[in-house]
Amino acid sequence: MIDGTPVPLAGPETNLRADAVRNRALLLEAATRIASERGAAAITMETVATAAGVGKGTVSRRFGDRNGLLRALLDHSESRFQEAFLSGPPPLGPGADAATRLRAFGPALLRHEHEHRDLYLAAEPPPDRRFAVPADQLRHRHVVVLLREVLPGADSDLLAHTLLASVDVVLADHLLREGGMSLERLEAGWHDLVDRLLG
Amino acid sequence: MIDGTPVPLAGPETNLRADAVRNRALLLEAATRIASERGAAAITMETVATAAGVGKGTVSRRFGDRNGLLRALLDHSESRFQEAFLSGPPPLGPGADAATRLRAFGPALLRHEHEHRDLYLAAEPPPDRRFAVPADQLRHRHVVVLLREVLPGADSDLLAHTLLASVDVVLADHLLREGGMSLERLEAGWHDLVDRLLG
Repeated sequence: MIDGTPVPLAGPETNLRADAVRNRALLLEAATRIASERGAAAITMETVATAAGVGKGTVSRRFGDRNGLLRALLDHSESRFQEAFLSGPPPLGPGADAATRLRAFGPALLRHEHEHRDLYLAAEPPPDRRFAVPADQLRHRHVVVLLREVLPGADSDLLAHTLLASVDVVLADHLLREGGMSLERLEAGWHDLVDRLLG
Repeated sequence: MIDGTPVPLAGPETNLRADAVRNRALLLEAATRIASERGAAAITMETVATAAGVGKGTVSRRFGDRNGLLRALLDHSESRFQEAFLSGPPPLGPGADAATRLRAFGPALLRHEHEHRDLYLAAEPPPDRRFAVPADQLRHRHVVVLLREVLPGADSDLLAHTLLASVDVVLADHLLREGGMSLERLEAGWHDLVDRLLG
């Protein structure tokens, strides 16, 4: 899972028949067009079906529900982000020590989610599935691995949840839009948090 | 706001006429009955209206929407919790030093939310209103005040969000139900986090 293979936001999509692959690409194109013209909030199973000229059932079979569709839209940028922290250059990727990589991870995540905040906010799962997104589980696993190295005495599993919650896209968006904070302040907050934890 | 006056989860309810007060009490009784018989998930504007023998419009006028109704149901226990940390005995209330109160706050919040988790989870607001709940804002303000005293150099506003996110009811419920963790482990995690931050 963390050997360099990107983990899709929407779960694995293997062995699709050629027409299903074409279908999927058409639907994602239609959804991207809607997002760029009218914003991510306008993406629904209906609007995508209409824009692609197919029935709503086709969209449902391909993506399950609206959340699955939005997560699929995010797959490409999520894969690039995963490559960056799993196998990219330091300080985010291997080659830097664990403390440096942990320090770099928060700001990279903040910037990545901020860039795609429209889609991430629209794709926010309901409470009972908030921790069931494979890409989020990979981020958690990555932070756990780094924490185990820099803070062997800590409850890494729990602490990784705390660190990730501190840069959650819903919280960050609230602080930026309503709290009058800057992205730089959030990044400094991550650095300060990590530095205090590492003593 | 933090002078000892409990802040209601559902916003202030002042100057209600006597019949409106009776009406409100009847609806809350009906909702409580539904929750105890069929669980918090069964509480909807319709089921409460039916159980109270009134129209759905009456429930809407009184509580706005389902979320407002659930928050009103939580008001009583939330007020007791607020009294405990604002004016109750140490270590949670005044009388203990700020570090001790901060250390005590997380476990108290975890236990309080765990006791009412059914209602809290059902009342979880949508992402764009996640930080708009008055009772949550009071908790944040309380942690900020304590942090300013124990960590004058820190970004208290941001750090308070991180601390509260670490014991968020949705996260805690996930860790308890899916992650195989115990409430004691979550409480120890809060203590460890605070101790590391305070150095």
